[in-house]
Amino acid sequence: MEQQPSSQPARSRRPSGRDAKIAARTARSHAFVPYITRQIPYYEVLGTEGLELLEHNADTILEEIGIDFRDDAESLQLWKAAGADVRGERVRFPRGMCRTIVQRSAPREFTQYARNPAHNVVIGGNRTVFAPAYGSPFVRSLDEGRRYARIEDFRNFVKLTYMATSLHHSGGTICEPVDLPVNKRHFDMVYSHIKYSDKPYMGSVTHPERARDTIEMTRILFGDAFTDPLTGKPRTCIISLINANSPLTWDATMLGALKAYARANQATIVTPFILAGAMSPVTVAGTAAQTLAESLAGMALAQLVNPGAPVVLGSFASSLSMQSGAPTFGTPEPALVLYVMAALARRLGVPFRSGGSLCSPRVSAG
Amino acid sequence: MEQQPSSQPARSRRPSGRDAKIAARTARSHAFVPYITRQIPYYEVLGTEGLELLEHNADTILEEIGIDFRDDAESLQLWKAAGADVRGERVRFPRGMCRTIVQRSAPREFTQYARNPAHNVVIGGNRTVFAPAYGSPFVRSLDEGRRYARIEDFRNFVKLTYMATSLHHSGGTICEPVDLPVNKRHFDMVYSHIKYSDKPYMGSVTHPERARDTIEMTRILFGDAFTDPLTGKPRTCIISLINANSPLTWDATMLGALKAYARANQATIVTPFILAGAMSPVTVAGTAAQTLAESLAGMALAQLVNPGAPVVLGSFASSLSMQSGAPTFGTPEPALVLYVMAALARRLGVPFRSGGSLCSPRVSAG
Repeated sequence: MEQQPSSQPARSRRPSGRDAKIAARTARSHAFVPYITRQIPYYEVLGTEGLELLEHNADTILEEIGIDFRDDAESLQLWKAAGADVRGERVRFPRGMCRTIVQRSAPREFTQYARNPAHNVVIGGNRTVFAPAYGSPFVRSLDEGRRYARIEDFRNFVKLTYMATSLHHSGGTICEPVDLPVNKRHFDMVYSHIKYSDKPYMGSVTHPERARDTIEMTRILFGDAFTDPLTGKPRTCIISLINANSPLTWDATMLGALKAYARANQATIVTPFILAGAMSPVTVAGTAAQTLAESLAGMALAQLVNPGAPVVLGSFASSLSMQSGAPTFGTPEPALVLYVMAALARRLGVPFRSGGSLCSPRVSAG
Repeated sequence: MEQQPSSQPARSRRPSGRDAKIAARTARSHAFVPYITRQIPYYEVLGTEGLELLEHNADTILEEIGIDFRDDAESLQLWKAAGADVRGERVRFPRGMCRTIVQRSAPREFTQYARNPAHNVVIGGNRTVFAPAYGSPFVRSLDEGRRYARIEDFRNFVKLTYMATSLHHSGGTICEPVDLPVNKRHFDMVYSHIKYSDKPYMGSVTHPERARDTIEMTRILFGDAFTDPLTGKPRTCIISLINANSPLTWDATMLGALKAYARANQATIVTPFILAGAMSPVTVAGTAAQTLAESLAGMALAQLVNPGAPVVLGSFASSLSMQSGAPTFGTPEPALVLYVMAALARRLGVPFRSGGSLCSPRVSAG
């Protein structure tokens, strides 16, 4: 990012307008703020009593109904060894077990390293890190209207995000480049984040092998800096989105990616993606309790794999039109779920991640 | 709104699909909720210390700089009699004077009566009353795009608002019908609210005479019900938007309307309309202190005219692009001003009104 002063200029010349522009650009890049440190208070929609009730209900879900861990013998084995009640692929947890495991070793906050150390982000506490949108299969342009995204779009979004001082993170699946075959797509996606940005980025989760590829590429990128000289352990240079298959199911793809990242000390955002009314109860309270149960089980598994691996409690909740079955955005209930889940994450002592501030314009501002 | 049962049906017939539809419509109208009673807590962005500082600063503005009351000898006379320091059209207020006047007689909450008593709204306390947008000169339609509004649009918006169960109030200048001459426009606007809705409405404020016309039309509409038989005083059947001419100025038009409504025991929303950076300091704190000062002076004047006349502390704040001078919407600062002003209104003990939840889609959802 810095201008390399040339000791031997090719030819002597007076400062030009171009020089001034470059200088202005450089000065601007130095005004970049790597993340927000919040000074404003939390909005607490529920008091202690309400939050305790949700934690109690989440424990009831974990104890009585349990969570399915599908097609993943290792996870079942880890749970059995930890003292959970495993029958087939259904795992039931004694009250408080998942919470205890998480609180024993998960960090309250952690640094995600970036290629450019000035862009390192601290995740957790009173910091807010903004990242671009995740997972859109479509893009919209003035010339072509709405169409499936391609890798060229992906690269452009990474470049735009790199230029946006209000985005502290390069994100992950900034759009889904469907012009590339699925089994090789992740190479180009991760490489785009590496090549066109020096902000922190997210890794591939669509197959455990692709998670390992992401880790390997990141190890090459960071070189010696990948390892913390003090601890000898890998630094956290990747954060990745692990979605539950709600209701109450973790599948082999996501479990495999979760374990691969946790083993390498990379961060995971353990996130039930819930359309309330279809994948959870339609109520705010029911959705919050289920989200907490699913997320607790996922975060606890990461701690069983590698105690101390950074985990983030994630929540994506939206509502469903009970008339048409279509997802709806910008309604009040998901906003309440978000506030409640953030409060539950603070009580648990882990960072929180969500989207938010969705509104309902005729054309979504995404 | 009720189906009048006909004792002598024109001809005997079996219930038709049309009957079923009418019955369903009638049942729906009974599901109407006249206003929201909030169960969720306030979001307090400032503690007591911060709010006290803003109140102190507002008092400093009122005491040292003062407020202009332009072209309105009666207002100046009222202030002089109340003990303010009046020099020319500039009025300066001893510390705490405006607050004391407001707190002495302004109601903490009040009922605005509607033609249909089921649509009466309680304004203040933990109630939220939703009203449609106010003052748009333009409308947008699929056929015609963006164009100036006409009285036919006004009528249509009143009808749509009447049908919308989530809007508890018919609003006022729901759009500006520019096809009618200004000096007679208010008759058609108020009449539209009276004819096409039975929800509560807002009055004309563009001239004191037009405020008096609004009161007279409302008196005709309500008939005997306009007067409270217990007190012999007019019921509050109109609420009207009184905008300060920020910074620090009240003009004769708004003062005349304010006094006309206050004398008739009708409610006023005393609202500095501020584009921060042009009409107030660019900071949240400066804008909040100025808004409080201007609003306090206006509400206190209403109490001097008629102690006990309902007043609402209003705040409209937006920011200005310091690059282009254009108003900007959906930025964080006005949201903070809104939260702070609502907290200041609660401390003062009057209801609060604002717009809000503005976002920045490419096409405003208004």
